[in-house]
Amino acid sequence: MSDAVPLANDLFLRALRREPVERTPVWMMRQAGRYLPEYRAVRAGSDFLTMCRTPELAAEVTLQPIDLIGVDAAIIFSDILVVPEAMGCHLTLDEGVGPQFPTPIRSAAQVKALRDVDPVTDLGYMLDALRLVKRELNGRVPLIGFAGAPWTLASYMVEGKGTKQFAVAKRMLFEQPAVAHALLDKLAVAVGEFCRAQVAAGAQAIQLFDSWAGALAPHEFREFALPYLARAAKMARSTGVPVIAFAPGASWALDEIADATQADAIGVDWHIAPQAARARLGDRAVAMQGNLDPCTLYAPINEIERRTHDMLEAFGPFGHVANLGHGILPDISPAHARAFVQAVQQHDWSRSAHAAMRDEALGASA
Amino acid sequence: MSDAVPLANDLFLRALRREPVERTPVWMMRQAGRYLPEYRAVRAGSDFLTMCRTPELAAEVTLQPIDLIGVDAAIIFSDILVVPEAMGCHLTLDEGVGPQFPTPIRSAAQVKALRDVDPVTDLGYMLDALRLVKRELNGRVPLIGFAGAPWTLASYMVEGKGTKQFAVAKRMLFEQPAVAHALLDKLAVAVGEFCRAQVAAGAQAIQLFDSWAGALAPHEFREFALPYLARAAKMARSTGVPVIAFAPGASWALDEIADATQADAIGVDWHIAPQAARARLGDRAVAMQGNLDPCTLYAPINEIERRTHDMLEAFGPFGHVANLGHGILPDISPAHARAFVQAVQQHDWSRSAHAAMRDEALGASA
Repeated sequence: MSDAVPLANDLFLRALRREPVERTPVWMMRQAGRYLPEYRAVRAGSDFLTMCRTPELAAEVTLQPIDLIGVDAAIIFSDILVVPEAMGCHLTLDEGVGPQFPTPIRSAAQVKALRDVDPVTDLGYMLDALRLVKRELNGRVPLIGFAGAPWTLASYMVEGKGTKQFAVAKRMLFEQPAVAHALLDKLAVAVGEFCRAQVAAGAQAIQLFDSWAGALAPHEFREFALPYLARAAKMARSTGVPVIAFAPGASWALDEIADATQADAIGVDWHIAPQAARARLGDRAVAMQGNLDPCTLYAPINEIERRTHDMLEAFGPFGHVANLGHGILPDISPAHARAFVQAVQQHDWSRSAHAAMRDEALGASA
Repeated sequence: MSDAVPLANDLFLRALRREPVERTPVWMMRQAGRYLPEYRAVRAGSDFLTMCRTPELAAEVTLQPIDLIGVDAAIIFSDILVVPEAMGCHLTLDEGVGPQFPTPIRSAAQVKALRDVDPVTDLGYMLDALRLVKRELNGRVPLIGFAGAPWTLASYMVEGKGTKQFAVAKRMLFEQPAVAHALLDKLAVAVGEFCRAQVAAGAQAIQLFDSWAGALAPHEFREFALPYLARAAKMARSTGVPVIAFAPGASWALDEIADATQADAIGVDWHIAPQAARARLGDRAVAMQGNLDPCTLYAPINEIERRTHDMLEAFGPFGHVANLGHGILPDISPAHARAFVQAVQQHDWSRSAHAAMRDEALGASA
């Protein structure tokens, strides 16, 4: 889609497309979150789901890290579980308990009864929030939309809540694979359509989160997660905006994820060294996003800088979007988050072995 | 050490030493556990810690899976947290809450105050249980002793309880690395001495569980987990019995674990395909143990058999101890557990491509 307002900072989009960039762009997963006092102030007045459903509040916290931390992209504030909710799964979110579906999905009849999602009518509040943020950003940085991938949403819907092992959801894969496939099939369509609607509402990139990919062994990942992630990703890609596929805990599958999804970029979690991720992806023309361990931000600032620079050098200057390898933790100080972002933005590539490579690709003429 | 009673079934020990075996041996992590009605009957009369501390009860449940499921090795019933408890960390275990240290370790002074463990006086109940089991086994199958690895114990001691992310423990690694190292150092000695004492009490193999290895990124794993796992493993190996090092969630490091620990066998979790594990270990002379996803036991029996045979073929007939890739889940039916064990024990290697290899190594002459 064409955007009325040109971007002042399009580093993020260019890095996703593996175009030369003057410096590596950076944002943080969960950057609109509890580590910011300004976020907690908004949150004090509204519960989490109300914030998701109120475009003005969602927009306000989405914009906070742009102003306060200086990241190179905004990601709309929302939750991956809004899709199952729109399909008819009643969602609760009690303080200290986390999101729950009081009536988990366990049968073919329940899957059949799930509604087809019309994003415009069912998830209009998030589309409104995207429009509002887009207007207020006014071209400062690109805006990312997102959705949970089908396996991750299905595992929540079957469990009814977050767990360590997802044994109930996995039990369905082994005991009732046909029911699982029917559920995943519905979810792939809903997620894909939702991504398309987000782009129509102004999202300039889409990230798909297969957050519970790591709960699956290779065989089940290939049967129950990857094909549905790929379907949703392809629907998102059909809009023309870049798509990031992130499946934490499945580093062994980075190559398969790249091939199946044809995503522009692959999210890399903190469990794997950047060099190992690159080796796994081989010479595939795909960007990478990641992957500093969020706990690194507990370290003193000079150590954060050192680790961030090591990470940048390891990924190299092309086709890399700097990020954490998981969401920022709620008890990180904003000063440390800022130190990470600034360490990326101020990194002097000219000192490194990558500099020549970059200069060549930028077509430096003198 | 020399054992008075010769073993009727030493397949497990021979496989660990990569000696030829007539068939692959099999046992299951957490095989003395809640999936057995006979275990639940004992558990109904005593809480978990009382069972650990009462040699007769620990021995009774240790022997159950030998009689009921027919596994090829016994593993002493206990808990990895008995070591921190012996060091002076008060341990509680409330129903539905899990093990907790009400006073977690957060400071250098607390680390300094931890007691040096004398296994004979402080953990004599487990040594007594080993002696009792050894006598009652009477050579039927080998007996495995075990301990938690230093990082895993330290992370529990610092958190005070199990968590998803171990962010408090990791915060210590980044904020107070010297305190973490002091704690890990004490633990390595305590764990190593405990392993030696278990062998003196009759254990014929030792497994070290670095259960929370997966909470660490490569850099921290190499600094805070691997060197201490290696120290404990070397102390255990000095007894002459085979040692298995299991660090679930760190499949990327199988080669480094093998090199650093010099363990006889490396545990392989279910996240990685057997072929990928073998490739990671290269031509190192090390056995492998694993790795069926415990959730596979939810599947119908014919599917369990098929998956188990696929796993056996993938590992091959040498230097492999069949096991699950994590502890057996409490809601698995004993019939399904038995199906897994029997699928290993009845596997007909002669149909497979591995048969010729095995026959050659066994020196089949006609």
